[in-house]
Amino acid sequence: MSNQKLFNIAVVGATGAVGEQIIRLLEQRNFPIKELKLLSSARSAGVKIPFKGQEVTVQEATPDSFEGVDIALFSAGGDVTKALAPHAVNAGAICIDNTSAYRMDPDTPLVVPEVNVDKINEHKGIIANPNCSTIQMVATLKPLYDRYGISRIIVSTYQAVSGAGAKAIHEMLRQSKEVLAGNDANPDILPVGSLPVKHQIAFNAIPQIDKFLDNGFTNEEMKMILETKKIMGDESIEVTATCVRIPVVYGHSESVYVELKEDFDVEEVKTLLADAPGIVLVDNPAEQQYPLATDAAGKLETFVGRVRRDLSNPKALNMWIVSDNLLKGAAWNAVQIAEYIAIEQ
Amino acid sequence: MSNQKLFNIAVVGATGAVGEQIIRLLEQRNFPIKELKLLSSARSAGVKIPFKGQEVTVQEATPDSFEGVDIALFSAGGDVTKALAPHAVNAGAICIDNTSAYRMDPDTPLVVPEVNVDKINEHKGIIANPNCSTIQMVATLKPLYDRYGISRIIVSTYQAVSGAGAKAIHEMLRQSKEVLAGNDANPDILPVGSLPVKHQIAFNAIPQIDKFLDNGFTNEEMKMILETKKIMGDESIEVTATCVRIPVVYGHSESVYVELKEDFDVEEVKTLLADAPGIVLVDNPAEQQYPLATDAAGKLETFVGRVRRDLSNPKALNMWIVSDNLLKGAAWNAVQIAEYIAIEQ
Repeated sequence: MSNQKLFNIAVVGATGAVGEQIIRLLEQRNFPIKELKLLSSARSAGVKIPFKGQEVTVQEATPDSFEGVDIALFSAGGDVTKALAPHAVNAGAICIDNTSAYRMDPDTPLVVPEVNVDKINEHKGIIANPNCSTIQMVATLKPLYDRYGISRIIVSTYQAVSGAGAKAIHEMLRQSKEVLAGNDANPDILPVGSLPVKHQIAFNAIPQIDKFLDNGFTNEEMKMILETKKIMGDESIEVTATCVRIPVVYGHSESVYVELKEDFDVEEVKTLLADAPGIVLVDNPAEQQYPLATDAAGKLETFVGRVRRDLSNPKALNMWIVSDNLLKGAAWNAVQIAEYIAIEQ
Repeated sequence: MSNQKLFNIAVVGATGAVGEQIIRLLEQRNFPIKELKLLSSARSAGVKIPFKGQEVTVQEATPDSFEGVDIALFSAGGDVTKALAPHAVNAGAICIDNTSAYRMDPDTPLVVPEVNVDKINEHKGIIANPNCSTIQMVATLKPLYDRYGISRIIVSTYQAVSGAGAKAIHEMLRQSKEVLAGNDANPDILPVGSLPVKHQIAFNAIPQIDKFLDNGFTNEEMKMILETKKIMGDESIEVTATCVRIPVVYGHSESVYVELKEDFDVEEVKTLLADAPGIVLVDNPAEQQYPLATDAAGKLETFVGRVRRDLSNPKALNMWIVSDNLLKGAAWNAVQIAEYIAIEQ
C-alpha cells in the first residue's frame, strides 16, 4: 500500500466491544490512516486508547464530528447511527454501519465482501454491515449458492454473550462464578437489556435474542431471514431461524440445514468450501476435528465442518459453522469493507 | 396403591448419575417395593445408599443377582446390559434398560409412555428406555402426530453435560473454575470418554455426542433419527438431527422444526400441547416466558415453548423443547414404565 492515499477514519462507539476490535484491526492491518478520530457518548469521552504507539483521546460524537472524515465506522447502536450518520454523509464521509438501522433500507447496500463486494460501489453514503449470525452463514453458503443454488435454509444458533456487548460478557462470567460458589445468579442484563425480564445465562441456554415480533420470531431471527435474502440478492431463498444465547464468550456456532437446487457430491462441496475466500474447512470426524467457538475466538475466518448429506433429503446438507462474532461477525467485516473502499480510491 | 402387590426391584448401576435418580424417584413415588436390591460394578460395591430412612448396601452385579427380582432397572452401560439382562430375564425379571443395547432390537419394545404405552405388554423380558434427547422430542410431538401427522423433523440439540455422566458434570464445573481463574481448561473427559481427542466444554459448544459413523452423523444423532421412527411406529417420518453438547449441567434443550401433514391453527397446536400428558406449555413471548434448562432441572415434565408457524412453510412449526435429561430423559421414563408394569399386575 505504498504511495497509497491516506484516509481520515472515525470510529463511532470506540469504547464498545466492537469498536475496540475495529481499532485493533485497523492497527493490525496497517490500514492507510492519516488521522484516527475515536468517538463515543459523552460518558466515555476523555478515555485514552492506544493506537500504533500513541494514545488517541476519545471525543464525544456530535453532528459536527465528521468534518474531513473519509470513512466513519459506526457501532454505537441504531439510535446513534440514525442520529449521526446523515451528518457524516453530508460531511462527505462514507459510513460503514454495524447496527441494524439501515440494513433493510433499499437504498443501502448490505455487504459481506465474500458474497456481494460489488454492492459496495452502489452506496449513497452508507454501507450496512449485516448481523453477526447472518454474516458467517452467508459467507459459508455463497460458494454452494453459486454452484448448486439454494432453495431453503433452516438454522439454529448457539450465540456467544459478547454479541450483547461487554456488559453481557461481564454478566455471564459474574453469574458463572456465583453459581459455582453455590449462590444465585441474580440475572441483570440478558436476554435483552431494555426488557424487564432477566434470565440466568450461566449454565443455561436462552432462546431469546432481541425482542419478539407478533409472528413469534425474534428480531434476531428475522434479521437472519431477511438479511440472507438481501445479501444473496435472492428473495426466493427460504430461511428459518431459531436464535439461542449460550454461555460462550466469543464465537457464534450454527447448526445449518440447507437444501440445494441441484444434485451434489459431498466431496465437491467440501472442496468448494475449502477453496472459498475467508472460509476454513475443519472437518475430520475420524480425528474429532470440527469447528469450535474456543478455536474460532480471535480469528478472522469462518470455520465450517460436520458437512454431511442429509439422510432424509439427498439434496440437503447439514453443517456446523463457527466464527468470532465480534470479528467476522462485526469488526472485521466492517474493516474489510473499509479496505475495499480504500483500494478503490 | 393399597392391597397392591409389592415388587422386588433391582437397580443396576445404582451409583451412577441415572441410577441415583431412579432410587430417588422410587422413594418419592412410593413405588410398591418389597425388596430393593442395589447393584453396581465391583468397584462401587459396599457403598451404602439411603432409602426410606434405611440404608441399602450396594452389591456387585453378577449373573446370579436376579433371583426373585420382579423388575430390574438397568443403567450401567450397554455392555453390562448385554452381559446381565439375559440372566435377569431367565430369572423371571422384567428388565427396563436405559442403555442403547436393545433399543433397535425388533423384539424389544422402545417405550415412552406418553407415546406408546401399549407396547409395554409386548415385551419378551426387556423393555428399552429411549435416548434422552429422543424422549422429550417424541413426547412433545405425539399429540401433533395424532392430530395432523408428521412428515419431517429437523432438530438441533443443546445437551447438558450430565448426559455424559457424573464425571462429565465434574469436568465441566472444574473447567469452568479453571477458565474463570485464567488457567487452561485441560479437557479430560468430553466429548467422548473412550476416544483420544478431548475438547474444552466450559464456555464452548461441542458438536459431537458419541462416536461418528461413516455417514458423518454421530451415534447420538442416529439414535434420534431411528428411535423416533420406532417409538412413533412410523418409518415414514423423516428426521434430521445435529446433537451438540453445551455447558449446562441438567436439562437438554432442542430447537425443533416439524412439518405437519395437514393444515393447522397455531392456537390449536398450543392447546393440544398444553393438554398433553407430561407436557407443560411455557409460551408467552410478551412476558419473555419460554422453557429454560435451569427451570426444567429437577422436574419430571417436558416443557415446550417458542411455538410458531414457520414463515417459509405454512405446514411447518418451530418450537423449543426442554426437559431434565436425567429424569424424563432417563430415570423418570424408566420408573414410569415400571409403574405401568406394577399397575398391570
